[in-house]
Amino acid sequence: MNEKESRFEMTKKHHTQTFLKAKKEGKMDKDFIPLCAHIAKTKEYFTSSCCAGRISLVGLNKEEEKKESAFHRKWHRTVKLKEIEEGINSYKGHILWFKQEPIILHIGTKNIENAKKILVLCEKVGIKRAGIKVAKEGKYIVEILGTHNITAPIKEGKFVIDKKHTEYLVKKANQKFIKNQKTLEKLTKQIKKEIK
Amino acid sequence: MNEKESRFEMTKKHHTQTFLKAKKEGKMDKDFIPLCAHIAKTKEYFTSSCCAGRISLVGLNKEEEKKESAFHRKWHRTVKLKEIEEGINSYKGHILWFKQEPIILHIGTKNIENAKKILVLCEKVGIKRAGIKVAKEGKYIVEILGTHNITAPIKEGKFVIDKKHTEYLVKKANQKFIKNQKTLEKLTKQIKKEIK
Repeated sequence: MNEKESRFEMTKKHHTQTFLKAKKEGKMDKDFIPLCAHIAKTKEYFTSSCCAGRISLVGLNKEEEKKESAFHRKWHRTVKLKEIEEGINSYKGHILWFKQEPIILHIGTKNIENAKKILVLCEKVGIKRAGIKVAKEGKYIVEILGTHNITAPIKEGKFVIDKKHTEYLVKKANQKFIKNQKTLEKLTKQIKKEIK
Repeated sequence: MNEKESRFEMTKKHHTQTFLKAKKEGKMDKDFIPLCAHIAKTKEYFTSSCCAGRISLVGLNKEEEKKESAFHRKWHRTVKLKEIEEGINSYKGHILWFKQEPIILHIGTKNIENAKKILVLCEKVGIKRAGIKVAKEGKYIVEILGTHNITAPIKEGKFVIDKKHTEYLVKKANQKFIKNQKTLEKLTKQIKKEIK
């Protein structure tokens, strides 16, 4: 085994152990388990980080900088109106954003040919946002990002979203959360078919 | 010149001509001209498609599929409340989304080392969404996507956003549009410094 190969083996082993530990401890997004478990069993691929999608309320400071961002509330499931209303009412910071975010997944692999295979596979299932983020000898990481999302500011200074609008946003976010899960199912199916 | 090099030269020539033609005809996003003009002059890079950011109203059908999407209105500048109100009032389709979208830029290059240089450069200026989308011998394309964005459904069936909320969204979208322009300025400066 050469240096490049042994680096890959070490990285794969590390990420596979992290996945198995998170799964055992119930810290793993359950919608992602079938996909990650399949990839863990392959010879040339691993998953590093992933989120099966979420609905959240994010509070930011005046500069609205990412590093200052904080989840005021987050759910990895559909939400109820009263949960969102409680989150809005209890928020005392500068600005509150309502977010419904798509799946995000990092798949690592050994060589660029495998990474390209993932890119083609994503196109097949209709995921447009996929790209190679890391390209090193023996370590290529593809980032996969779903498209269904909502990003809307809902509370700032004197402005606060009204009840009718909140109700509508919750309904749409839940719809999109479910669409997102279907994209994940399609992706899982395609990966199981093509990546052995 | 080998086959790989001649493929790159042809691709670069094609995209450079497309850029110069669009610029001449005034079809080019003017905020992107300094960056694209600089890249056109380099030996090993070209730009393919780009948008310096926009604010738009997007109408979708019941399935909300991308392929059915249509710009009801779009602006490559900050907007006025009355423009958005006119767009909302005149919309008769299934669902209308308000969108403020970040910069998107594709930079092509000859080899993977150059593509990686672009990824590192994006990290330096705080652009998290950048990835290699195409990886072929002699043709590597990096997609760069800004982060400032708003994506919110505002009209569907009996629901329509109220005036106070529209006013607030317009204010935030204009703020983010300007932040987005600053990211583009930073990116342009860094590219001029590092990519010759």
